[in-house]
Amino acid sequence: MNESENNRTPIGSFGKFGLITHLTEKTVLRNSTTVSGIGDDSAIIDSGEGLTLVSTDLLLEGIHFNLVYTPLKHLGYKAVIRAISDIYAMNGTPGQVLIGLGISSRFSVEQIDDLYEGINLACTKYKVDLAGGDITSSLTGLTIGATGIGKAEKGSIVRRNSAKPNDLICVTGNFGASFMGLQVLERERKLFDKDKAFKPDLSGYEYIIERQLKPELPEDLFARLKDANILPSSMIDVSDGLASDLLHVCRLSGTGCRIYSSKIPIDSETCKASEEFNLDPLIPALNGGEDYEFLFTVPLENAEKIRSIPDVTLIGHMTTIDLGNYLVSEEETEIELKAQGWEKA
Amino acid sequence: MNESENNRTPIGSFGKFGLITHLTEKTVLRNSTTVSGIGDDSAIIDSGEGLTLVSTDLLLEGIHFNLVYTPLKHLGYKAVIRAISDIYAMNGTPGQVLIGLGISSRFSVEQIDDLYEGINLACTKYKVDLAGGDITSSLTGLTIGATGIGKAEKGSIVRRNSAKPNDLICVTGNFGASFMGLQVLERERKLFDKDKAFKPDLSGYEYIIERQLKPELPEDLFARLKDANILPSSMIDVSDGLASDLLHVCRLSGTGCRIYSSKIPIDSETCKASEEFNLDPLIPALNGGEDYEFLFTVPLENAEKIRSIPDVTLIGHMTTIDLGNYLVSEEETEIELKAQGWEKA
Repeated sequence: MNESENNRTPIGSFGKFGLITHLTEKTVLRNSTTVSGIGDDSAIIDSGEGLTLVSTDLLLEGIHFNLVYTPLKHLGYKAVIRAISDIYAMNGTPGQVLIGLGISSRFSVEQIDDLYEGINLACTKYKVDLAGGDITSSLTGLTIGATGIGKAEKGSIVRRNSAKPNDLICVTGNFGASFMGLQVLERERKLFDKDKAFKPDLSGYEYIIERQLKPELPEDLFARLKDANILPSSMIDVSDGLASDLLHVCRLSGTGCRIYSSKIPIDSETCKASEEFNLDPLIPALNGGEDYEFLFTVPLENAEKIRSIPDVTLIGHMTTIDLGNYLVSEEETEIELKAQGWEKA
Repeated sequence: MNESENNRTPIGSFGKFGLITHLTEKTVLRNSTTVSGIGDDSAIIDSGEGLTLVSTDLLLEGIHFNLVYTPLKHLGYKAVIRAISDIYAMNGTPGQVLIGLGISSRFSVEQIDDLYEGINLACTKYKVDLAGGDITSSLTGLTIGATGIGKAEKGSIVRRNSAKPNDLICVTGNFGASFMGLQVLERERKLFDKDKAFKPDLSGYEYIIERQLKPELPEDLFARLKDANILPSSMIDVSDGLASDLLHVCRLSGTGCRIYSSKIPIDSETCKASEEFNLDPLIPALNGGEDYEFLFTVPLENAEKIRSIPDVTLIGHMTTIDLGNYLVSEEETEIELKAQGWEKA
């Protein structure tokens, strides 16, 4: 009855961020308690003494996970990680998660128990409370809505839009591992699909598969930055890919950037798997996504202090916007950074 | 790989509340800011001066809506209503919503614009801010995660678990309209499916169809209760059905109840449609669900005051738990209340 329509702009014609901008440009904020709405990792609510942060994510079967190789316990764990990552990314402290579940009848209670075991494990590890949610039936796959709640002191929030030219670009951990873990899992799944007697051999890929199936967050970072008296000038959690998320910070901050390919931290297992798939390891590192690492910027004068913090790597610096966004290769050629893949400048 | 399993308890063997209880019985609350977690309409977070309420719901295509007869604008509107209803039900004031969207490629940008138009309309009407969310692709249908955020003063929160024997059971509005609206829409859809030239005739059902497609909340209630100096002893939003939600309050409060069939408010259009479907109108009124009305209890001494509040009906009273949960018919027979349907006592 409302299926006919003359105007059809395909949904894919906007990128994710473009679509969000398009849909929300008419959004008006009315309530004085809404400190900040769309456009950052979490919404910021003024709750009187401090700030409350709330963030929500959807995890959909077939898009975010494939149950052929994703144990439900790990999936529950990851749902919590996803919810609280957005709270950490604002320099907040996560306190609660709410989990909404859409379950089809093909699931048993024991399977959902496994999912909750993972949820509870992650809650214990990251000291957050499972404080509510919703359970409903689903006609299709498993649907998970993961809402994270946290708090922050006024003045300590770190946004995406506040990096400055000359700020140093820092990242935690390493990149591309989760994406290459997924490629290995997918390769084995296809072989298994063709021949059910096939025994998947995942040895030698333990680290990258764990990064895909049961990621952890570098939560120590925040205490270390605080101890070193460093307040980042901007921050984002890297979930869409290092390049995409860095470009997002640049766009919102009105800066350009230079990052150095030789500086981007990549694990040896990621390199090994990339080689097998005939990929330059920089491709998964820049565009893979689901890294659950943090990218943040600090003023230049923090350079010495930052180098003393374990597990943090300086990969480049912000520039004025007119200098564009570039990856500098080991041969000193500059390649324009794009959200997906990149082209020679 | 993880599909084989020996123990399989069908998910349907627990009711919704039973499943939630089963899954969350091991949940431990660690953070002092978590005032209350699972088991109420919203999570309650201590935010210093006041309380922050957060609630989350999933709306899934094929379960919660059918796009053949649900305009996307109305669906967006309803998603906001759903999110904030849980905040009102705690006697809180909603301030923000976050909307997570899973969209398959069959949707156009114009369709999603319609959805957002409805979201924005409801935000304007109910004075809440769209403060964030998530957009992702979906392999199957449209998925909406609706998170509501609100605030409440300490001491003014109304829970589900605090009704007392002899408290009066009050409801807003009327019941069963949304369910009967859905039956009419489904009947016309089936005729349309058989014969595409068929023109659905929905005249005479405008009210019940609007209750299904574009529900409103009786938000005035809360100011009126406050003006009359009445603090309900318990409250819940009626989304699963009047019987199911009342029983839920009884279970959590440790009470029984008596409600009177002649007192249950039912609109004349609901009665007319019920007759056409050969249903006793009490069936949709008690078990239909999606009413977006509120059920609350007040101490007996508020009886006079409550009668002066427009659009509120007294339908019965709480009892001690040993007296059970009963519907008293016009012939004074007592019928045991069940979450779905009921049996003679």
